[in-house]
Amino acid sequence: MTGRDAVGAAADDRLARAALARVAEPGDELVGRWLGELGPGETWRAVREDRRLPGASADRWAGLRLRAERAAPERDLVAIARLGGRFVCPGDREWPRQLDDLGATRPVGLWVRGPCSLRFVALRSVALVGSRACTEYGAHVAGELGVALAERGWTVVSGAAFGVDGAAHRGSLAVGGATVGVLACGVDVSYPAGHRELLGRIAERGLLVAELAPGEHPTRSRFVLRNRVIAALTRGTVVVEAARRSGALVTARHAGRLGRHLMAVPGPVTSGLSAGAHRLIREQATLVASAAEVIELVGDMGELAGEEPGPAVPRDLLAPQAARVLDALPGAGSAGVAEVARGACTSPEAATARLCELRTLGFVERVGDRWQLCR
Amino acid sequence: MTGRDAVGAAADDRLARAALARVAEPGDELVGRWLGELGPGETWRAVREDRRLPGASADRWAGLRLRAERAAPERDLVAIARLGGRFVCPGDREWPRQLDDLGATRPVGLWVRGPCSLRFVALRSVALVGSRACTEYGAHVAGELGVALAERGWTVVSGAAFGVDGAAHRGSLAVGGATVGVLACGVDVSYPAGHRELLGRIAERGLLVAELAPGEHPTRSRFVLRNRVIAALTRGTVVVEAARRSGALVTARHAGRLGRHLMAVPGPVTSGLSAGAHRLIREQATLVASAAEVIELVGDMGELAGEEPGPAVPRDLLAPQAARVLDALPGAGSAGVAEVARGACTSPEAATARLCELRTLGFVERVGDRWQLCR
Repeated sequence: MTGRDAVGAAADDRLARAALARVAEPGDELVGRWLGELGPGETWRAVREDRRLPGASADRWAGLRLRAERAAPERDLVAIARLGGRFVCPGDREWPRQLDDLGATRPVGLWVRGPCSLRFVALRSVALVGSRACTEYGAHVAGELGVALAERGWTVVSGAAFGVDGAAHRGSLAVGGATVGVLACGVDVSYPAGHRELLGRIAERGLLVAELAPGEHPTRSRFVLRNRVIAALTRGTVVVEAARRSGALVTARHAGRLGRHLMAVPGPVTSGLSAGAHRLIREQATLVASAAEVIELVGDMGELAGEEPGPAVPRDLLAPQAARVLDALPGAGSAGVAEVARGACTSPEAATARLCELRTLGFVERVGDRWQLCR
Repeated sequence: MTGRDAVGAAADDRLARAALARVAEPGDELVGRWLGELGPGETWRAVREDRRLPGASADRWAGLRLRAERAAPERDLVAIARLGGRFVCPGDREWPRQLDDLGATRPVGLWVRGPCSLRFVALRSVALVGSRACTEYGAHVAGELGVALAERGWTVVSGAAFGVDGAAHRGSLAVGGATVGVLACGVDVSYPAGHRELLGRIAERGLLVAELAPGEHPTRSRFVLRNRVIAALTRGTVVVEAARRSGALVTARHAGRLGRHLMAVPGPVTSGLSAGAHRLIREQATLVASAAEVIELVGDMGELAGEEPGPAVPRDLLAPQAARVLDALPGAGSAGVAEVARGACTSPEAATARLCELRTLGFVERVGDRWQLCR
């Protein structure tokens, strides 16, 4: 980063980054290296003035030039402003520093829509990702986690896709949580179309975030590359339901490589949609069954999951000797002291003493000179 | 063990062990120490002749004496023979050496019914344990594991209880597998009564095993102590469904302490009956979703679970450049080379070359001077 980053990107750098965000594909390492070595301004001038930079093949450079001809960064900055949004660059107050962990694949900049500060909401954030074609179980679990994380002040980050993503965002929104949708297209593009309304609510109460300039459409590779941003932005990633080839596993692998917490929710082994999550748990992910367990992992010291104790059974509180005597009484009918003593392997005197204790505790009752369990 | 053990227990030792099996509760460490120090004969004589042995309280000794008065080992050995069974002692050919790992809590001897050699079938055995009140899911998974393990030549060991135990035994029997039921009562006692027929089939085609002498009935503590035998007998224990206080978790802890493999099958996090299994996985157990994964863990080198590959998608085999060009084509309608080159960020020449490759592979087609995806 240049000295300028520390005080926010200067106007010309911002303009150059806006242009490069339009010209370069997300996560283009070559462009990332140029930015690191030459800075945004010089990199953009080189592309615009066709001064081929080191490492670019003739075809690659030609492609960048083709895109540069169409680039109009001023227009894009106006467009995002019209949407009530902004273009956040490294060095800006709102820039989430954790994205710098991505090194040369760090986003050139982020197009952001919504009332929150990206940097702030990302401080305590968890990614919830999973299958688009999730089961009712997956949708239920994602929704419940979205609710519970938001209620505890955690930001739910996801991809705004159908299935697990959508359920997670909705759960968070339902309890007034700030949720972040990281898109693989422009923040003004409603994709999937069926989520137009959801995307609108996220933009109103949370944040829509994209590396891609306004108007850009998603492609397969853009979905894949988007996942690295979700992983880098958050303290940990939770995979809810994922088949073996799910994009959620890509996010998970990124999270692991970036040293973020990697978690997965188990499901029925009879469901192919849980196979990916189970495999992650076998290999590297921590099994999580509740928001409390997620927070225990990603949260600060002391945010521990409350241990759910089993029901307290008074019988467990008995001393071993008394428990053995209780065991020695028949399920039905009564028994004499000698029989109880034999069953408990103790003396008749000790057996009588324990039986009297058990009577005061309400476990047994005396019938003449015999004893039986209380009904 | 005495020298005699190496060549099979001598008659008097066997008789003494039969008597002590009737007198002592399973896993009685004190009796276990006496057996180690004095041998069976001397231990039994001391009890019978009321020569109090070190470590026994007056009450404890009195209890042992009460039981000794009723002991009739000759009769018990006749009884087990009438059942077509036998009393297997440490040092016998049929004795499973792995039980010696239990140290002072090693069974005094085992009452066995069934056509197989306990030692042999236990060599490649796995314990399947879980809740009596399991869900349909738990019963289904236990049954499927029972089938698949038996088909691969593995012996399923369980407790013959309702729920997971029963389903595991039935699955194994269904494909002609030898299955072992370790009981908390005499091998002639049908407990639970509802499993009379199942117990009969296990005795016919597998093995019923008990520390407790014929006629003895189960008690709470006997169920708990029985679990250590299941854990010690097998190479690993698989918990299928277990609430937080399930006895299956006792078996699991024993398996862990004995250095056996500890495995658990996940389930829906919405099911309390999977909470115990999930907790085990978080703490120490390996998640297993199939018999192949169980065998990969407990089996010999090279018995690996076949990796289930996702469906092979030809698209994945494309070189990055070609994949980017394919991504650049619109989902509907066609595009010119310049547009494709811009989308793929490459030169028009390179784009054309990739498009021709993709055409031969059947991904795209040419329409005049434009290109589109194949329907």
